[in-house]
Amino acid sequence: MPNLGRRLFAEFIGTCLLLATVVGSGIMAERLAGGNVAIALLGNTLATGAILVVLITMLGPISGAHFNPAVTLIIAIRRELKTAPAAAYVMVQIIGAIAGVWLAHAMFGEAILQVSQKVRTGPAQWLSEGVATFGLILTIFATHRAHREFVPVAVGLYITAAYWFTASTSFANPAVTLARCLSDTFAGIRPVDVPAFILAQIAGALLALAVCTWFLKPTHEITA
Amino acid sequence: MPNLGRRLFAEFIGTCLLLATVVGSGIMAERLAGGNVAIALLGNTLATGAILVVLITMLGPISGAHFNPAVTLIIAIRRELKTAPAAAYVMVQIIGAIAGVWLAHAMFGEAILQVSQKVRTGPAQWLSEGVATFGLILTIFATHRAHREFVPVAVGLYITAAYWFTASTSFANPAVTLARCLSDTFAGIRPVDVPAFILAQIAGALLALAVCTWFLKPTHEITA
Amino acid sequence: MPNLGRRLFAEFIGTCLLLATVVGSGIMAERLAGGNVAIALLGNTLATGAILVVLITMLGPISGAHFNPAVTLIIAIRRELKTAPAAAYVMVQIIGAIAGVWLAHAMFGEAILQVSQKVRTGPAQWLSEGVATFGLILTIFATHRAHREFVPVAVGLYITAAYWFTASTSFANPAVTLARCLSDTFAGIRPVDVPAFILAQIAGALLALAVCTWFLKPTHEITA
Amino acid sequence: MPNLGRRLFAEFIGTCLLLATVVGSGIMAERLAGGNVAIALLGNTLATGAILVVLITMLGPISGAHFNPAVTLIIAIRRELKTAPAAAYVMVQIIGAIAGVWLAHAMFGEAILQVSQKVRTGPAQWLSEGVATFGLILTIFATHRAHREFVPVAVGLYITAAYWFTASTSFANPAVTLARCLSDTFAGIRPVDVPAFILAQIAGALLALAVCTWFLKPTHEITA
Repeated sequence: MPNLGRRLFAEFIGTCLLLATVVGSGIMAERLAGGNVAIALLGNTLATGAILVVLITMLGPISGAHFNPAVTLIIAIRRELKTAPAAAYVMVQIIGAIAGVWLAHAMFGEAILQVSQKVRTGPAQWLSEGVATFGLILTIFATHRAHREFVPVAVGLYITAAYWFTASTSFANPAVTLARCLSDTFAGIRPVDVPAFILAQIAGALLALAVCTWFLKPTHEITA
Repeated sequence: MPNLGRRLFAEFIGTCLLLATVVGSGIMAERLAGGNVAIALLGNTLATGAILVVLITMLGPISGAHFNPAVTLIIAIRRELKTAPAAAYVMVQIIGAIAGVWLAHAMFGEAILQVSQKVRTGPAQWLSEGVATFGLILTIFATHRAHREFVPVAVGLYITAAYWFTASTSFANPAVTLARCLSDTFAGIRPVDVPAFILAQIAGALLALAVCTWFLKPTHEITA
Repeated sequence: MPNLGRRLFAEFIGTCLLLATVVGSGIMAERLAGGNVAIALLGNTLATGAILVVLITMLGPISGAHFNPAVTLIIAIRRELKTAPAAAYVMVQIIGAIAGVWLAHAMFGEAILQVSQKVRTGPAQWLSEGVATFGLILTIFATHRAHREFVPVAVGLYITAAYWFTASTSFANPAVTLARCLSDTFAGIRPVDVPAFILAQIAGALLALAVCTWFLKPTHEITA
Repeated sequence: MPNLGRRLFAEFIGTCLLLATVVGSGIMAERLAGGNVAIALLGNTLATGAILVVLITMLGPISGAHFNPAVTLIIAIRRELKTAPAAAYVMVQIIGAIAGVWLAHAMFGEAILQVSQKVRTGPAQWLSEGVATFGLILTIFATHRAHREFVPVAVGLYITAAYWFTASTSFANPAVTLARCLSDTFAGIRPVDVPAFILAQIAGALLALAVCTWFLKPTHEITA
């Protein structure tokens, strides 16, 4: 396994490029879409799904390509990662996510430091985040069990779908949520709305862990 | 093979997430598209095709990933699944589909209980459903014979195309059809229109079975 | 190798479903797009690219999945298919293509028998068809040499691109061209414009054959 | 390894078809999109991402499928290609790129010889090009290390994302940049803006090389 420094760099650069894509493509899409939000969301979805496949494929062998404190939490609970490196993972994910938001702002000539005013609150949004994160963790573990090499593509396709089937456009990631409150653009979220999103995400992740522990336990499978 | 409980759970959760995606992305797309239905259908198609690839990949090794009574019927006729588990499959598919519709409503803050008023009837629609289901069964069996691991991607791509090349946007699934009459949104269908859709789907599936039995029978193939 | 009857059926059903998709998705896209032709072409492209990957994957092992007289011609010139079966291939491709157009009309409640009035003529269109078919044949042979299992995906992606990078939206197929003159919809072409398209396609295919014969001849490759 | 003539032809034909796609799909998209630039960029993105996957898959085993002087420069610095063939690669890339632009103009009935008047300048654009090229080189090397056969898909998906997450729509290629100043269409760039773009691209590529040398050095990996 690569040493911790390189694993942390992989988490940093991956989360940074993920957020640069989420926020940057949101700015690009909103600027060009002439007010049609569905067209903007198509561009935002295409870019996000595509970069996820790339980042998870290329950084997976180095750090596991979590880019997501909810994923790292579940991995740590399953004792596949110790507490200290897990905490370090989460810290660099948050730093990388914020760096990615600022990089997107710089690339689009926006003010670097912003605070979002976009309201994202209410039970429908919280349920959406819970479902989105439940589905993400289920996708990771069930695909890992069924066809391990397909995990990067499965996660990219899952998020592609979840951008559209949840009312919140599926943040599903506490580091992403935190960082997006620092962008007053298409992808933003008010700081005051962040804690409930993160709680919903963690609840969804824990539920997925409980379900998967029963559902995906090894069996002596016989191909029919 | 996993025990029946886990296989049924796989059919339940898969059909549930499939319907949450079909209905949820339809709501999202219609809300954002500003009245341009082609843009709405692009979002709906992208989400549905993507989630199908994910669900079939990750749940295929557990239950076969039918999510569709027409598929289960054909598998049962081929004696690859006995009558009792096949009946159980169909029942949980229907329950899962309805749960998925209600989950989508909850995530978008819509009334949970709805009945569709969307008219989908007439010979052109019925022919569309027959062709759509014929093509789906052919895709499953012919891809299974040609390149087994590619079935999840093939089904996702087939439905992506069928959303556009059939006048009905390709339900091709009796459980999906039943559940969608419980949503008065983009993806809905009036209850009174459901039986003819299901008959057309079963007819298309049986025709595909008849064709495949001759067309795909094993041969001593020689690579040219 | 499967017997000729099944190979011809594979060519028939594949070309039929290909044309049903090209024409059907064109009708759907044009009906829904509210006059924005770029949105219509996005839907048309997505459906066509997706179904090509499915059809070539699932029917390739049976008939080679030509669906295209220009491809069959090149294969016959390379003596990988004898004259009599090649002629039979071309005949069922044309019959299948016309059947697919009529099936699309029936699914969308259009008159079955139509003749297109869409003008597609002039040197820019002919050059487009020559380039499109040159690129298609190059894609087939060069991908076959580099990574044989990827041919279905490569052809689907190539046509996805070619719908946009050629002024003619890339017919690149004499059977497709013939059949599309029988549809007065988005995908149509006037009968009088068909011969020049087919000539340009054959010229492009022959040029590709000449180039590939030199360019792709076997070498003793050493992985660097 | 194929002889140099065939390797250079692969670089020529690949770069030519890449530029024909970038410029041709840009013209098509702009003509059809009715002034909605986001829709035009969706078509442009879809075509470019798709053709990159095809070209790199099919030509990779012959020439390495660089199509990009920045890539060839990095390969040469790593001493995986000698100076003379590297210089020849760059020359045919530039010739191929210009030929591709002219081919696109001919296919769309535009004047062959054009000079772009599209302004693309300023720190935000230069930063975008630096980031875009950094990410491209990182994608190539990290994916090559992680899953070599996936490089063509990774590059296509990376550029798909980068068209949207950078303010410049990600040229990331000096030959592409040079050639696009010869097209006064959607994809153009003023000649006076070219040098700064190329400098930014080379800076991004060199930074990526420095990072990768540390980050991707071989380790004794243990699958956890």
